[in-house]
Amino acid sequence: MASFRQDLTIGILGGGQLGRMLIQGAIDLNLKIHVLDPSAEAPARPYAHSFTQGSLTDYDTVMAFGENLDLITVEIENVNTEALAALKEQGKTVYPDPDHLKLIQDKREQKQFYEQHGLPTPPFVLVENQAEVIAHKHRLPAVNKLGKAGYDGRGVQIIRTEADLEKAFDEPGLLEDLIPFEKEIAVLVARNADGQTITYPVVEMVFHPVHNLVEYLFSPADLSVLQAVQAKELAVSVVEKMEYVGLMAVEMFFTKEGTFLINEVAPRPHNSGHHTIRACQTSQYEQHLRAILGLPLGETEQMIPAAMLNLLGEPGHTGPTHYQGMEEALALPGVYPHIYGKAETRPFRKMGHVTLLDKDPTNLQKRAREVGNLLKVVTKG
Amino acid sequence: MASFRQDLTIGILGGGQLGRMLIQGAIDLNLKIHVLDPSAEAPARPYAHSFTQGSLTDYDTVMAFGENLDLITVEIENVNTEALAALKEQGKTVYPDPDHLKLIQDKREQKQFYEQHGLPTPPFVLVENQAEVIAHKHRLPAVNKLGKAGYDGRGVQIIRTEADLEKAFDEPGLLEDLIPFEKEIAVLVARNADGQTITYPVVEMVFHPVHNLVEYLFSPADLSVLQAVQAKELAVSVVEKMEYVGLMAVEMFFTKEGTFLINEVAPRPHNSGHHTIRACQTSQYEQHLRAILGLPLGETEQMIPAAMLNLLGEPGHTGPTHYQGMEEALALPGVYPHIYGKAETRPFRKMGHVTLLDKDPTNLQKRAREVGNLLKVVTKG
Repeated sequence: MASFRQDLTIGILGGGQLGRMLIQGAIDLNLKIHVLDPSAEAPARPYAHSFTQGSLTDYDTVMAFGENLDLITVEIENVNTEALAALKEQGKTVYPDPDHLKLIQDKREQKQFYEQHGLPTPPFVLVENQAEVIAHKHRLPAVNKLGKAGYDGRGVQIIRTEADLEKAFDEPGLLEDLIPFEKEIAVLVARNADGQTITYPVVEMVFHPVHNLVEYLFSPADLSVLQAVQAKELAVSVVEKMEYVGLMAVEMFFTKEGTFLINEVAPRPHNSGHHTIRACQTSQYEQHLRAILGLPLGETEQMIPAAMLNLLGEPGHTGPTHYQGMEEALALPGVYPHIYGKAETRPFRKMGHVTLLDKDPTNLQKRAREVGNLLKVVTKG
Repeated sequence: MASFRQDLTIGILGGGQLGRMLIQGAIDLNLKIHVLDPSAEAPARPYAHSFTQGSLTDYDTVMAFGENLDLITVEIENVNTEALAALKEQGKTVYPDPDHLKLIQDKREQKQFYEQHGLPTPPFVLVENQAEVIAHKHRLPAVNKLGKAGYDGRGVQIIRTEADLEKAFDEPGLLEDLIPFEKEIAVLVARNADGQTITYPVVEMVFHPVHNLVEYLFSPADLSVLQAVQAKELAVSVVEKMEYVGLMAVEMFFTKEGTFLINEVAPRPHNSGHHTIRACQTSQYEQHLRAILGLPLGETEQMIPAAMLNLLGEPGHTGPTHYQGMEEALALPGVYPHIYGKAETRPFRKMGHVTLLDKDPTNLQKRAREVGNLLKVVTKG
């Protein structure tokens, strides 16, 4: 076990809402967090020990940022892994490991990792260009994913029929069987350098029908005890086979046949774990810090059923942010907004989230929709 | 109900650990918090929107600090209330009200308030000097309190016998009957400007036998349901009779006769509410902010039994801080340290606290002592 060092200088690549909430978690342990982000208005900036404005994908910028740090982590996977590998070589602690970030950045490598390690995932074929997608048209309907640069639904599309083939990506990617799933779920799992692992209760994700962003999330998921154990075991297998260190979100399909297939993983705190701040003993943010610091992991027990809804910028609204319906939402029992401090709203921009706590889980879905209908992120005036 | 305004500038008089945790709570609602504190190393400073170094008791300093603020609150009661009254006169929102702070600052006025409003409190007599204490020696054993400047056990002493009379305070104060109490308890209560009130579960405080500081705290207190209701009703009476706005900690004696007597109150988040960060839906810090912002109050339900232990600087250690036993403590289930970021430790200085969560409340007392014996705040090396 690593010793607890107050004087460690810790850097995060990325200063979005995940970085902001990581710092919130770091305050309890009095950890000093330095942040690199391309935007001068990064949500994490006001709470960072120092802030550097710069590109996360530029080798020299990441090297310069890492120079005086002891420990480097990320809140986004699209970072320069060559620089992180060089910093590791210099003796810095870098978690997640640069090799794991590189693997996860490329959906093709990620899928091949699952295949090589016997981890269940939807069947797929690698494709180099549009022509190769067309050559596999017998697999339709299928999901066409870009190998790189897919984030938040970008770089992922469904090719249902031959008529859709004209929109197939003309870059290296993959074609994956479209799984007629029962639910989409996620398991947060953490592993520290000593190999200790821990999972959170399984969460159920409800995606926005159009925009491919998580709209609502429920935890714990409506699964049997045995099913939940299977999902957690699969998540633990991923981090153990990778020898991954840090927090990871493992997104899965729960199929109509009752099996779990890994969709993709995120090597960092994740949208599907925001509710852990309020509902679990240890938040996913504190857990990530404990894992990368080599400290014992915290309890993940969920103390009360929770829903999470993303507060997305309303379509048609671009400009200074106003939270319409906030007072009414706060007057409802168990409604806890978390506002990310973004000055400008844009359609579907993640502006905040609401955690909803209710002892009666049957209420949560109805109540989450109620809050979602009440609380809107619009422009002022 | 007030409307939720992101652009409010909020100031706190005081930047100690309570101010630090107030800011942690304020991040969720994206509130911008400015801090005034006499120490350049104030624990809240790294997370404040702006920091002003200066005296909390100096009229001009407080006036200048308040000049550009919309809303002013405190994390300590020993502040210049004349300045706060003048700022209120200028149209600023000041909660707690300057009159309430003034009342609470003076233990004599505080006791008279209880008496005038029929609120049960230990019988007392006002004394102007040592001679008047001696004149009341038939009341011994008794507690001799200074009217002003008593904080954290300073300005409070027990006069047991006539031999102790020579140490009686020679300043305006009071002499209070020494109550042979069963327990010391506290009730956190919040009231917003609309008059909505809410209480937290009753907490039980265990004081350090020598230093008159809370050493351990257990929540919920070991009381019957009826007793807990009585204690909560008494706490609500205090804020309602005062028409107080904000969070208040009402410390009480639970007597051997099974009644509750108000000892004193704190007009702010309090040491007896640290556990609410982890164990309750709404922390005392968020609750204070909701109350002073005129927002609906949050749920106070406790999700799991909790203990809190203060991490006090070890006797004999003055200098750079080291947390001995931290890794071992973190390895125990349900142990959550909160470190205040004070660079230098001193004997009995409040350096942090640990929240301990355990579904089995019968375990908590034993486990709190175990963590207290393991985790020590010492100097380095």
